[in-house]
Amino acid sequence: MESSAIAPDVSPMPARVDGEARPVRVALLGHGTVGGSLHRLLVEHREHVRLATQRDVEVCAVLVRDADKARDGLDPDTTLVTDSLEALLATEPDVVCEAMGGIEPTRTHLLTLLDRGIPVVTANKQLVARHGTELFARAEAGGAQLRFEASVCGAVPIVRMLRESLAATRIERLLGILNGTTNFMLTAMTAHGQGYDDALADAQRLGYAEPDPTEDVEGLDAAAKLSILAGIAFGTTVDIDDVRATGITGVTAEDVAHAAVLGCRIKLVARAERLAAAGGGTTVALDVTPMLVPETHPLAAISGATNAVLVDGAPFGRLVVQGAGAGGPETASALAGDLVSVLGSEPSFLTRDPHVAHLPVAPRDARAERHYVRMQVADQPGVLAAVAGALAGTGVSIERVLQQAAGEGEATLVITTHPCAPGDLDSALANVTSSDLTVLPMLDED
Amino acid sequence: MESSAIAPDVSPMPARVDGEARPVRVALLGHGTVGGSLHRLLVEHREHVRLATQRDVEVCAVLVRDADKARDGLDPDTTLVTDSLEALLATEPDVVCEAMGGIEPTRTHLLTLLDRGIPVVTANKQLVARHGTELFARAEAGGAQLRFEASVCGAVPIVRMLRESLAATRIERLLGILNGTTNFMLTAMTAHGQGYDDALADAQRLGYAEPDPTEDVEGLDAAAKLSILAGIAFGTTVDIDDVRATGITGVTAEDVAHAAVLGCRIKLVARAERLAAAGGGTTVALDVTPMLVPETHPLAAISGATNAVLVDGAPFGRLVVQGAGAGGPETASALAGDLVSVLGSEPSFLTRDPHVAHLPVAPRDARAERHYVRMQVADQPGVLAAVAGALAGTGVSIERVLQQAAGEGEATLVITTHPCAPGDLDSALANVTSSDLTVLPMLDED
Repeated sequence: MESSAIAPDVSPMPARVDGEARPVRVALLGHGTVGGSLHRLLVEHREHVRLATQRDVEVCAVLVRDADKARDGLDPDTTLVTDSLEALLATEPDVVCEAMGGIEPTRTHLLTLLDRGIPVVTANKQLVARHGTELFARAEAGGAQLRFEASVCGAVPIVRMLRESLAATRIERLLGILNGTTNFMLTAMTAHGQGYDDALADAQRLGYAEPDPTEDVEGLDAAAKLSILAGIAFGTTVDIDDVRATGITGVTAEDVAHAAVLGCRIKLVARAERLAAAGGGTTVALDVTPMLVPETHPLAAISGATNAVLVDGAPFGRLVVQGAGAGGPETASALAGDLVSVLGSEPSFLTRDPHVAHLPVAPRDARAERHYVRMQVADQPGVLAAVAGALAGTGVSIERVLQQAAGEGEATLVITTHPCAPGDLDSALANVTSSDLTVLPMLDED
Repeated sequence: MESSAIAPDVSPMPARVDGEARPVRVALLGHGTVGGSLHRLLVEHREHVRLATQRDVEVCAVLVRDADKARDGLDPDTTLVTDSLEALLATEPDVVCEAMGGIEPTRTHLLTLLDRGIPVVTANKQLVARHGTELFARAEAGGAQLRFEASVCGAVPIVRMLRESLAATRIERLLGILNGTTNFMLTAMTAHGQGYDDALADAQRLGYAEPDPTEDVEGLDAAAKLSILAGIAFGTTVDIDDVRATGITGVTAEDVAHAAVLGCRIKLVARAERLAAAGGGTTVALDVTPMLVPETHPLAAISGATNAVLVDGAPFGRLVVQGAGAGGPETASALAGDLVSVLGSEPSFLTRDPHVAHLPVAPRDARAERHYVRMQVADQPGVLAAVAGALAGTGVSIERVLQQAAGEGEATLVITTHPCAPGDLDSALANVTSSDLTVLPMLDED
C-alpha cells in the first residue's frame, strides 16, 4: 500500500511538473537598501537558490515610489510599478517580499496580499510589532504564510530559532543586544574613552547612526524588536508600549570607566523574562536599558554593530546567536531564507500567529537586582553618611562604594547595591541632593 | 499485516478535525540518557507542545534492550518493546525518534521506517555521517521526512540554520568548536595551567569525558560532526574519512602558556572552507586540529563544554551560534524541535538530501597559513641558526621567536611563521633535530 505524502488540495506554490515547473515569481515591495540587496541576491545566487529549491526564482515586479530613480541591476523583464498594488498583482506573483517599510500604505498592501492567499515575507519591524495580530489573522484566513525573520536583527536567525528549534521548550529569559548603532557607540566609548557626543558623531559619520538617532539611542528600535521576540518566546501578545525603554543618552565616559573598574562593560540590554507574580501566575518583565554586564558574560564580548540574542530555558540550557543585525545585504539574506521556506512549506502551525496567550506585564518592582549608582555630590563631610542613610531607609543595602573628588567642591560617588527593587532605590535617591545622577541595573554573572 | 498509521489519502500526520484530532503517536528508539530525556520533555512540556502544535503528543512505544531496567516516568500506557521493530510498529506510531545510537541495528530500523513513510527524527551522528545518503534516498522514496538536528552539537540549532535560514546564501567557511569534552579540557588547561593528563582526569571525574576518551581527544567526534555540517553548508557529499583529524593529545601546558604569550588560546577547531583549486574549480578543505586562536576571536571566548559554530558567507556576513553541545536534556530539546517541525510540515526540498553536488577535497597544502612551532632543541650556539636556515630552505618565513632554557642542556624554541603551506613546514622540520616537536596552525584575527 502506497503511503506517501499527498500535498493538500490548495497550494499557493505552482505545482512542480517533473522538473518543468515555471519559475517562481517573486514581487518586491520597495527597492531601497534592503529591497535592492534582495534583488541582487536573487540574481547573483540564482544558482544556489535553484540547487536548494530545484526551482528557478525570478523577480516579476517591483513596487517603488519613484520609477525614474536609477536602480542597479534591474532586469529589463522586471515590471516597475509605481501606482498601485493592483498593477503589481497583475504580474501574478507567487510570493511577495516586503522591504518598503513604514506602516501605511504597507499594512494595507500586506492585508490585501494575505487576503488573496499570496504568501508574504517581510522585513518590517514596526509593522510586525504593532500590527502582527491583525496580519497573522488575515494570513490564517487567506491560507497564506507570513514570515518575518528579517524584521528582527537582520541576518541573525533568531525568529526561526524561537519558533521552530525551541518550539517544544520552555523559555525563561531572553537577553539581547538588539541595536547595532548603540552597541557600536558603547563599544567605541569603552575602547577609546570617548564621550557620548563624540561616539554619536563617529557613528553618524560612519553611517551606523541616522542623522536623527532618536529611535536607536532612546532604545525604541530595540524595544520594537524585543516585543516581537518576547511574543514568540513566551507565546504571548506583547504591546510594544509595555516595554520600558531607557536609552543610552545618559551614559557618560565616566560611567563606562567606572564600569570597567567594577569588571563590567555597559551594554544596552533588551530583556524579556518570565517572573512569577506575587499573587501567583506568570508575568513577563520587558525592558530595554543600559546595564553593567560582567566582562565574562557572553553579551560583554559582543562588540561593534553586531547583534546578539541569548536565550535561557529548559531543557536546552543556554543558546547565544550573534551576527549582523542590520545592513541591506544582511537583511536580504534573512528575507531570502524566509522566501525559500515559503517555497518549501505549506501554511501550518509553524507559520501561524505565535501569540496564543496573554501573559500580564510584570510591574517594574517585581524584580530585585543589583544597581550601579553614580552621583555628583557636595565634597564635604557627612555626605556619604547621608546617602547611606537614605538607602538604608528604604531597605537598600550597599555592596561597594567608590568615591573621588571631582573638583569645584564636588565629589563623584559610585555605589553598587545588593539586589533591590528599583522603586526602593528611587525613593531613597529622591531624598539625596545630587547635581547629576545615573542609575543602571547590573546583570549577574550568570 | 498490521494496519498502517497513515491514511493513504492524507498527509502523514492525522488530520486535525476541529480541535478533536487524536494525539500524535511518537515512538522512541532507545531510552537512555537522550531517549529518557526526550520522554520526560514530552511529558513535562506537554502543554507547551500542545500550545505550539494544537495537538497532543503521546509516547506510544519505546524500543529498549532491557525491559527490566527501571525507567523514570514511563507511562503505564507506553508499550515497552524489546524484541523487534515490528512490535513497535504495531503500536502505529506517526513519528519515530531515534536515540539508541550505533550503526546496526539502528540503520536497518530507520530504513524500514522510512520505507513505510514514517518520518524519523534522529540524534545519531555516526549514522548520519556515514549513511546519510542512503537514509535520505529512502526517505525521499518513502515520502517521509528525516530530520537530524540532534545529531550535531546537541541543543545548538546549526543544522536548521544552515539548511533553512542560509539556504539562499553562499557559505564560504564554517569554523566550529564541536566537541565539548576537549573544549572543557583546553579551558581547564588555560585557566588552571593543568597538563593534559590532569585535565583529562578531571573531565572524566566530572563526567565530561568517557572512560575511553579516544573519540573525543583524537578529534574523531568533531570530524563526524564537521562532515555533516560541511555537507549541508556546501551542498556536497563529504566522506567522513576525508576530514583530517588531529586530536589534542599532543597539546601540553607549555603550549597553552606559550599561546597566551602570543595573545592566543588553544582550541580544537573544526574547519570546512571553500578553496579555489589551483587548476580552477572549487574544493573543500576539511580538518579538525588544535589551533592558536587570537583572544579577540569569537571562538576564543567559548569556554567549558560549550559548542559553537561560526559561519562566514555572503551576503549575511558572519553568524555565530553557541550552546550546550551534549547532554541528555539538551539533545532531547533538539529532537523535540525536529519532532514539532515534522508535525508541522510536509516532506519538501527543505527536508530532502542536502548533498546535491560533489566538491573535491582540497589537498593539505592548498592553504597557506601561519603556524606555531614548539621544539626542544640542544641549548647550544648555532641551533637557532640551523632551524632558521632549514625553514628558509623551504621558503618558510619566521614571524616571531621565543627561546628559553629548559634545563638539562636543552632549550625550548617557539617560532611562529608567516603564512606557509604545511608541507613546506614539515619538510623544513624534517631537517631539524628536536626531542619534542609540536606544530599547530594559527587562526587569523578575522
